[in-house]
Amino acid sequence: MDYGEMALKRHKELRGKISVELKDALDSQEKLSIYYTPGVGTVSKYVADHPDEARNYTWLGNNVAVVSDGSAVLGLGNIGPKGSLPVMEGKAMLFKHFAGIDAVPIILDVHSADGIVAAVKAIAPSFGGINLEDIAAPICFEVEERLKKELPIPVFHDDQHGTAVVVLAGLINAMKILGKDLNNCWVVVSGVGAAGVAVMKLLKLYAPGVNMLAIDSKGIVCADRGDLNSTKQKLIDDGVIFAKNGGDLAKAMSGADIFIGVSQPNVVTAEMVHSMKKDPIIFAMANPVPEIMPDLAKEAGTAIMATGRSDFPNQVNNALAFPGIFRGALDNRVHKITDEHKIAAAKAIAGLVENPTPEQIIPSVLDDRLVPAIAKVIK
Amino acid sequence: MDYGEMALKRHKELRGKISVELKDALDSQEKLSIYYTPGVGTVSKYVADHPDEARNYTWLGNNVAVVSDGSAVLGLGNIGPKGSLPVMEGKAMLFKHFAGIDAVPIILDVHSADGIVAAVKAIAPSFGGINLEDIAAPICFEVEERLKKELPIPVFHDDQHGTAVVVLAGLINAMKILGKDLNNCWVVVSGVGAAGVAVMKLLKLYAPGVNMLAIDSKGIVCADRGDLNSTKQKLIDDGVIFAKNGGDLAKAMSGADIFIGVSQPNVVTAEMVHSMKKDPIIFAMANPVPEIMPDLAKEAGTAIMATGRSDFPNQVNNALAFPGIFRGALDNRVHKITDEHKIAAAKAIAGLVENPTPEQIIPSVLDDRLVPAIAKVIK
Repeated sequence: MDYGEMALKRHKELRGKISVELKDALDSQEKLSIYYTPGVGTVSKYVADHPDEARNYTWLGNNVAVVSDGSAVLGLGNIGPKGSLPVMEGKAMLFKHFAGIDAVPIILDVHSADGIVAAVKAIAPSFGGINLEDIAAPICFEVEERLKKELPIPVFHDDQHGTAVVVLAGLINAMKILGKDLNNCWVVVSGVGAAGVAVMKLLKLYAPGVNMLAIDSKGIVCADRGDLNSTKQKLIDDGVIFAKNGGDLAKAMSGADIFIGVSQPNVVTAEMVHSMKKDPIIFAMANPVPEIMPDLAKEAGTAIMATGRSDFPNQVNNALAFPGIFRGALDNRVHKITDEHKIAAAKAIAGLVENPTPEQIIPSVLDDRLVPAIAKVIK
Repeated sequence: MDYGEMALKRHKELRGKISVELKDALDSQEKLSIYYTPGVGTVSKYVADHPDEARNYTWLGNNVAVVSDGSAVLGLGNIGPKGSLPVMEGKAMLFKHFAGIDAVPIILDVHSADGIVAAVKAIAPSFGGINLEDIAAPICFEVEERLKKELPIPVFHDDQHGTAVVVLAGLINAMKILGKDLNNCWVVVSGVGAAGVAVMKLLKLYAPGVNMLAIDSKGIVCADRGDLNSTKQKLIDDGVIFAKNGGDLAKAMSGADIFIGVSQPNVVTAEMVHSMKKDPIIFAMANPVPEIMPDLAKEAGTAIMATGRSDFPNQVNNALAFPGIFRGALDNRVHKITDEHKIAAAKAIAGLVENPTPEQIIPSVLDDRLVPAIAKVIK
């Protein structure tokens, strides 16, 4: 039985993977009078008069909403809110398991930026933080930007920044192993969706000297293409990517130090790897089938390889980052997760690998030092 | 220490009364692969292709949102969303304790009917049902009506219908004890907010011959007053209340069989009770101080007395009704909770008191036959 069949069977048995439970049993009239009327009235009045104290008298100090409109779910694409719910419940499990955070899946039946922003703003008082998930680009960018500006609680689009933080963590250790400086590297990023854009922005912030080429389905993103959406144009305008010359992926790869794929299976060939600089670094994160399989990449001379899969070394897994980031934001009352926080989180993750090797540039998601190490720097 | 002080202390210790928990531990790589990627992708695809099956593969079959904008919280009034959260968490405890339902507090930072309707519609795919709570009249009426029409899941404003169902249950047994027929009774309802309006509508449906007078802060609601809002006007237009003559509460009480108070403390005097028909029935549900205290009402000749308090006999408590109503709606796939369901629920509640006496017309909220008895008739 494969994981898909096992998952169907198990989900049907459980009828959902999460539940709401009571922190204390309602087993006496006295408890009813304390947790509900009349006692709770005093708590409500106190919280209404001291809204900053809500986090100390309700679950607001430890909960987040996992919000999706189901428009970009895993590799399945736009399957709608109902279809995304099993993933969001899974995400809620990860939040609890790794960080002890109470996460509630909120799946939305609105899909415009305006609609999503209005809905999240309306329900925001219910939560201590907002984790946006599986919302398609380019709407996800506007949604996150507006919510960050307009809400007093942390808002984090995990598909963007979770991936970016872990990629940066991996690159920090890869640079260390190879004795390279990211500021002197050429990087090819294949995929200009949520994750690709966030990776490019974060790498540029961390290493302003880095040169990056962005690849979309039409080839190298360059200034004279005339078909660029505002997100891609902004990458050029902000100087994030080098966009002087067009061409295809093969051309982009030639002479590059690093390939980062958040795109399609098997788009990278052995020849492309051969054409890269000495000791190429390949992060091939298309899932479940990467841009190039690790065996093939290694044969072609890849020095350091990472994928999104758990069955190869160096799994770039968002679960390395988001639990600690939200744990820190909630505990340290951080209202906005900044670029500096993301870089600090990447350094914290990288720092947990004491002696990085090509087979281990990223710690295991099961490393229980992760959440406290990251939470400490989100302050 | 009174309940208020105990509640403050205990809420601060617990930091919230509910949590999200995992139905199975994430203690192996295999479980991660079944509950999250890659296995969950198969479940998401299946649910996207068979949206009716979502309830069997996610927590939708057993969850509800407890939605409030904090505009009419307990006796505290419009204290805002944050202030309402302790009450909504308490309500979530009741849902779980009494009916095993996973309830999530959703407190809204929008307060117009349009805003509340839009927000609830946007998040509705996340839940198997919507329990509206502590939303002020008259907005609550429009919100519930529109959501019932526009959503494919049960929507129930508990302040209205929970109270109405339990009042009707109590009156069914009171009539039985006194050998009266509600169709021949005069009823005075003090308070024309959410609960009062719902009580009047349900009583009229159950006993079309009943005569009712509605009392608001200006006295008897009557056709020529010229200051009636649309809700009150509709009670007249629909023939729910007798609105030919004006006057004060004392005038209304004279000759009445039944007083139902969802209004203000101590508005009913012993003289008013004396002026009622023989064997008066008094449901004085203002909380925590009723419209007339039971001792005074009894001295003045009241035959059957109910309050909203747990320290007197016959507590009219919504928790008698809503857990079973939602349990039935979720289990029996009821998409709309109708007037017939409410009457059936009232009869089911009344039927659990085998030998009604003036001291027991309503079962205890701790009676574990309640939820199954009600759930059975919500079909």
